[in-house]
Amino acid sequence: MNKKYAGSELNLTAIQNIPEINPDDDVPHIINRCLTDQNLDLKNKDILVIAQKIISKSEDRFVDLKTVKPSEKALEISKKTDKDPRLVESILGEANEIIRAEKGILVVEHKLGHILANAGIDRSNIARTSDHVLLLPKDPDASARKIKNYFQGLYKIKIGVLITDSIGRAWRLGTTGHALGSSGIKTLMDLRNNEFDRDGRLLQSTVIGVADQIASASTLLMGESSEGTPAIIVRGLDLCDDSDTVKDLIRSAEEDLFR
Amino acid sequence: MNKKYAGSELNLTAIQNIPEINPDDDVPHIINRCLTDQNLDLKNKDILVIAQKIISKSEDRFVDLKTVKPSEKALEISKKTDKDPRLVESILGEANEIIRAEKGILVVEHKLGHILANAGIDRSNIARTSDHVLLLPKDPDASARKIKNYFQGLYKIKIGVLITDSIGRAWRLGTTGHALGSSGIKTLMDLRNNEFDRDGRLLQSTVIGVADQIASASTLLMGESSEGTPAIIVRGLDLCDDSDTVKDLIRSAEEDLFR
Repeated sequence: MNKKYAGSELNLTAIQNIPEINPDDDVPHIINRCLTDQNLDLKNKDILVIAQKIISKSEDRFVDLKTVKPSEKALEISKKTDKDPRLVESILGEANEIIRAEKGILVVEHKLGHILANAGIDRSNIARTSDHVLLLPKDPDASARKIKNYFQGLYKIKIGVLITDSIGRAWRLGTTGHALGSSGIKTLMDLRNNEFDRDGRLLQSTVIGVADQIASASTLLMGESSEGTPAIIVRGLDLCDDSDTVKDLIRSAEEDLFR
Repeated sequence: MNKKYAGSELNLTAIQNIPEINPDDDVPHIINRCLTDQNLDLKNKDILVIAQKIISKSEDRFVDLKTVKPSEKALEISKKTDKDPRLVESILGEANEIIRAEKGILVVEHKLGHILANAGIDRSNIARTSDHVLLLPKDPDASARKIKNYFQGLYKIKIGVLITDSIGRAWRLGTTGHALGSSGIKTLMDLRNNEFDRDGRLLQSTVIGVADQIASASTLLMGESSEGTPAIIVRGLDLCDDSDTVKDLIRSAEEDLFR
């Protein structure tokens, strides 16, 4: 993998007028219809970035909290965090491990490996009753692969697909876009002992979280409230790669000093 | 501040052929010359993103490790982390507090408030002897302000300037672009109790780290080794704001559960 994965221009385009997505909707088909309506197309090496929310909706990852019976443990953590015990039960159901539980805060290791507040469970923009919440897609890499295959078959090109979420961070305020799932795209760029700096010095510690940077760039165009632009075309990068996944971005628990 | 800070397109352009920057070089003047050479200009509301490295070089933030005498404390931490004791001394000189010190790892709270491995001190791409290291700019907000004022005066427009660095993160591998300094730009977008989602539900927890997202987007074009494209024009956002600084992005120590 060459380091020159970017030219001198990067262009991001929001796909407009994507309708509210419901369970069993065919997301790649709907996105393609919106592309056609706007005289847009996908080109070779484009990266299609999609907000996890519409993937979760299409995969019917809704939970009606009225149907959730909190366990003893959920009741206990609910008291500590001041969160709805049914929501806490849902969070625990999605989690491998509790990382921090304080008043107003419940950070866990999600089953997918990501460290996430509330296990990434969302209550906003879900177009259901106030008792409904939305879980992350079950297998975001598989969701990304399905969409990639659809468009690669249709356009006879190579593209990458990223599924993203807005995630809180240690040390800094504000969420930023992160990669949750991917297919056909390099996610981590390891230049160690491989590339040289301007002075001919071998780079010793440069590893770049490219997929998270693409997710952050795309999230700038997605908006967070009522904009409804959950799919973005990113053009100008050369990152097609079938061997990488989002798991490459996750620091192993053993090497993680901040749990 | 309206939530509609992005249109449907975001365009990033790398400014080419910026020469090696030396102490006392006039960075905004040099950038402007490169812009002119490429028939580029800055437009109203553009954000000019600049890698901290060239700011540090122009501000002569070089330290020759041969001149550094390690303290007792630096020698002790050097042993624990397996790092050059003179480098450790330099890191401690830039730090408020040690956050983690382990074999190969020294994470501190920088005087600027950021949590950074090695206090952001860099050894690569610095065009000096192998004993030279480069500290972060002393006051990145002031550096950004100076550059903003130069271009605003020249072009009679409003722009934002971000100074960025590639920073490691808790939980995830790979560095991503982060904002270190800013002027004339909104850095954190707080939609809480202000904006509504698609279902008319008042957003309760949406705070977006927009400046870090812009930094990540720009870093994709900057490259990390020998590309030499440390300045990027970001076009398509409406984030001009004179009240925000990068300090708004830093989680206070009291509210930080991951130190």
